[in-house]
Formats: sequence, structure tokens, C-alpha cells
Amino acid sequence: MALPKHVTIKEVGPRDGLQNESDMIRTEDKIDWINLLSQTGLSYIEITSFVHPKWISQLADAIEVAKGIEREKDITYAALVPNKKGLERALEANVDEISVFMSASESHNRKNINKSIEETYPVLEEVVLGAKKQQKSVRGYVSTAFGCPYEGDIDVKDVIQVSKTLFDMGIDELSIGDTIGVANPLQVQHFLTEFREHLPEQKVALHFHDTRGTALANCLVAMELGFDTFDSALGGLGGCPYAKGASGNLATDDLFYMLNGMGIETNIDREKLLQAASFIQSKMKKSLSSHQMQILNQGRE
Amino acid sequence: MALPKHVTIKEVGPRDGLQNESDMIRTEDKIDWINLLSQTGLSYIEITSFVHPKWISQLADAIEVAKGIEREKDITYAALVPNKKGLERALEANVDEISVFMSASESHNRKNINKSIEETYPVLEEVVLGAKKQQKSVRGYVSTAFGCPYEGDIDVKDVIQVSKTLFDMGIDELSIGDTIGVANPLQVQHFLTEFREHLPEQKVALHFHDTRGTALANCLVAMELGFDTFDSALGGLGGCPYAKGASGNLATDDLFYMLNGMGIETNIDREKLLQAASFIQSKMKKSLSSHQMQILNQGRE
Repeated sequence: MALPKHVTIKEVGPRDGLQNESDMIRTEDKIDWINLLSQTGLSYIEITSFVHPKWISQLADAIEVAKGIEREKDITYAALVPNKKGLERALEANVDEISVFMSASESHNRKNINKSIEETYPVLEEVVLGAKKQQKSVRGYVSTAFGCPYEGDIDVKDVIQVSKTLFDMGIDELSIGDTIGVANPLQVQHFLTEFREHLPEQKVALHFHDTRGTALANCLVAMELGFDTFDSALGGLGGCPYAKGASGNLATDDLFYMLNGMGIETNIDREKLLQAASFIQSKMKKSLSSHQMQILNQGRE
Repeated sequence: MALPKHVTIKEVGPRDGLQNESDMIRTEDKIDWINLLSQTGLSYIEITSFVHPKWISQLADAIEVAKGIEREKDITYAALVPNKKGLERALEANVDEISVFMSASESHNRKNINKSIEETYPVLEEVVLGAKKQQKSVRGYVSTAFGCPYEGDIDVKDVIQVSKTLFDMGIDELSIGDTIGVANPLQVQHFLTEFREHLPEQKVALHFHDTRGTALANCLVAMELGFDTFDSALGGLGGCPYAKGASGNLATDDLFYMLNGMGIETNIDREKLLQAASFIQSKMKKSLSSHQMQILNQGRE
């Protein structure tokens, strides 16, 4: 099995995790949590989203969180930004990296952003160019790449087209999302094999959701093809907005377990990672859904 | 990716699933459930265990269940048997196949069977020979093959030794168990690559638990090596006796989702499978833990 020696895990729990959680987390708890995450060895943390506060009330404190955390110099603190107004707030908060997002599915893009794909491009381009002007790196998310809740299958050519357009705008990294967690390993293999013929694979991260339990198998296939960057959310925070009882983001702690067992370096300290997971769990009304946290919770009962 | 065209799923929910569930299921509900399972396309169902009723009260009705179900002619109805006394009961109930079990770990074998590995062999041999005399096929389980809750890592050579001894007794198939769900895909690859040099791989099934979320990734690696028979329990029934809050057996419905999405034939009807899962869930006080059932339950809320 040809596997990367090192994998970069990009922690999206404070943004993609919390935005789908109904338990409201206090700003100071988010700050304390991100500070704990900064001590785990993670090199990248997406800390919040500068969407309009009315859209996602959980993340209405984006500026306070971004300004309140202690920054470690080797860590990239990123935030999601939907438009120019969001960019201004993100720049005010001085995040290191800006993430823009859109969908490979026309229907999902309209539902999520209220614009067609073509109408979305200029909005994102303004953000990318504005961020670049301030020497910020930019990440682009393409969601529903492996399946859409409205359209079903998505043609890889559509994902390639959207991705190319984002790279042409100047993004530094692309994150390909299985937003509803439907992908299977063979699909991922076919997708990535075609995808990397057209796009720079060393600038591509995979963002799997574990809604159907296939996320780690999908990561495995991606690694065998040479991909070495994965998004995940600690404790499996996030749920899936289209199946609320189901698990959502691939859990950082579960991904770490598999990689660590396979001897793949992540620079992450297991104990500190689980401490950070236990901390945010203690601020919620529910138990975290990751396998690692279920085991840990059981040991404590 | 070299994958088998067809995979055989062996359903162990009525035995390995229920034996770890605390909600007592009525005999007539077990019978109705197994009858539903018989309509899903499954070709193999492990229906109960003929251990002493005092050991596992959930399965004290083994004879009633085995005699009560409707047998389909193309399905193998198997049952676990620990010793000669259990074999007599299993033969009285006329099950199609007898399963014997032991551990690759000395400590786990002692805890589970109260005998050393060497002391266990003659007990199992008596069962195997007795079953063969009655023209029954025999399956051998080797548990804790990928890790032991007491000893940690298990040497593949120990698993090979135990497995060879079981094949020498005359078993028809071996099921290698990751009893506590610790295996990772690289470990599985190394293990199976060495294992199949010594033993007939076409007579080997893999029995993964999903305690740490790696079961589907482990199945994927096994399939790439040509293994095509997997044990699983519908709905993820069973839990893990060493981490009760955690998920246990790989869920048949989750395995089916992945295989079906990859175009691998299983002969299983998805709707009937989920109906059978919903039926047994309705007889329990909890929701089933599989990803598929979590999604289904959410859709109904």
C-alpha cells in the first residue's frame, strides 16, 4: 500500500462543526476550546465563519472569537467568508486565511447561497482578490462534489469546472466536500483519478462526512492516490444538516486513530486532542458522536 | 482497484449481536426477525448460540428459536456451540452449520472460555468431529486476532497457529475476528498478506467490529487482497463488551451501503434489509447504532 508518510489534518470543528450544532456555545468557551486545539499539534484551524450573523447565530460572535484566541505562530487560523462584507469583518479580525465556498450542484448552490453557480463566481472573485491584496492565503470549498441532496449524482466534470474557476481566481488550496456523506471508496478513486488529470493534486484537500460510515475508507483510497490533506471536526461535531440524527463531519479523533495506527505522522498529540474534545463536550448538552469519544465516555461511566 | 464482483455477507446479528444486548428479546420476536432476515437475500444467518443458558440468558431459548424459524432451502442457518453438550442441543434443533470458537490470545481465551488455548483444542475437536459425523459443516471463529483487551498486540503467527489447528480438525471455514475493533487497514493488509501464505484464503471470512470506525476501511483492504466473505450484524447490533457505549459489530446495512455503491453484488434487497432492522429495533428500548438506521430514524422523526 503506497501511503503518505505525513498527513495534514485541517480542523474545521469550530466552524463546520459548531455551525450545525443547536447547543449554543458561549464565546469564551469557543476561545478556550480553540486555545486547547492550538496545543494539540494541529497546524490549521478553521475558527469561525463571517457569514451574516442572522444566517448562523451560533457563529454570530466571529469577530470576538477571532480576536479573543491566542495565536500560535505555526498555526494557520482560517475563517469562512461568503462575500465582501464578510471579508471586511474577517480582515478586521486579522485571520490568516480566508475560505470561500460554493457548490458543484446548481440546486444546492441556489439553496445554500441563493445564487446560481455563474452568479456566485463574481462574488467569490471579489473576496479572493480582496484577500490576496491583503496577503491572505485563500481556500476554496466545493461542496456536494460526490452527491447532492437535490440532484443526486454529480458529474466529476462539473466539479472540475467549478474547481478550475476557483483556481483561476487565485485560491491556494481547494477542499472537495462530500457534504452529505454519500461517497464510497470506488467512487472516490474514480473521481480523484479523473480530477487530478486536470487540477493540481498537491493543492487539494478532501473533506469527507461520515454520515454513512465510509469516510475513513474514502480517506484510505485518497491516500493511496497520494492525497495527504484531510478536513475533519473534533469529536465528529456537526451532524449532517440533511439527516440530523446522523453523524456529520469525519471526526478528527477517529481519523487520527487510523492514521496513527498506520504509522502515518500527523504531529498531533492524542491526549491533548482528546482533552480538547472532552472540553467542548462538557459545554454541550450531548455526547460527542465520534468513536473515540464514545469509548472515552464509556470508560468514565 | 481489484475488487471481488460478489461478496458474501454472513449475518451474525441474532447471535453475536443479541448476545451483547441487555434488552431481552422475546423468543417469538427473534423468530419473526430471523424469518424477515431470511427474505432479504442473505445466504447465511447465525441464529443463536448453544452455550449454557446461564452464560448468556439472552440466548437461553436457542432450541426454541432454531426449531421455530421457517427455513429457506438456500440459506445456511448456523449456531455457535462451545462443547459436546451444546452440540447435542444444536443437533437436536437441526441447525445446518456448527460454529466453534476460541481466541488467539491466551489471556482472552482464559477469560472467555476458562481454559488455556491447549486445553481448548480437544473440546473443540470433539465438537468438530461430532458435527462432521452428522454431516454438518463447521465454522471456526478465532477472536482477538488483531488485538486483545488484556495482551494488546497479537502476533499473526499465533493466529496462524490456532487457525491451522482448527483447519486440521476439519473446519470448513474460518472467521477471523477483530473482537474489540482495534484493527487499522495497514495492519489488516500486513496480517492477511502473511496469513494467506499459510492458510486457504478462499475458506476465510473476516469479522470486523466497528468500535473505532475502521471496519469498512478494513473490509476494503481485505477485498483488494481478494477476500470476499464478511460477517456483520444488522443495525450494528451488539455493542462492544469492552466499551459498552461504543458501536460493536460492523453493521450489515452499512456494509451493504458501501458494497452496493461500489457495484459489488451481495444479492441483498435493501428495502427488506432495512425493514428487518426496523423490526428488531421496534422490539428494543434503544435505537440501532448503524449509520443507515440513524439516517432512517431521523427521516421518520
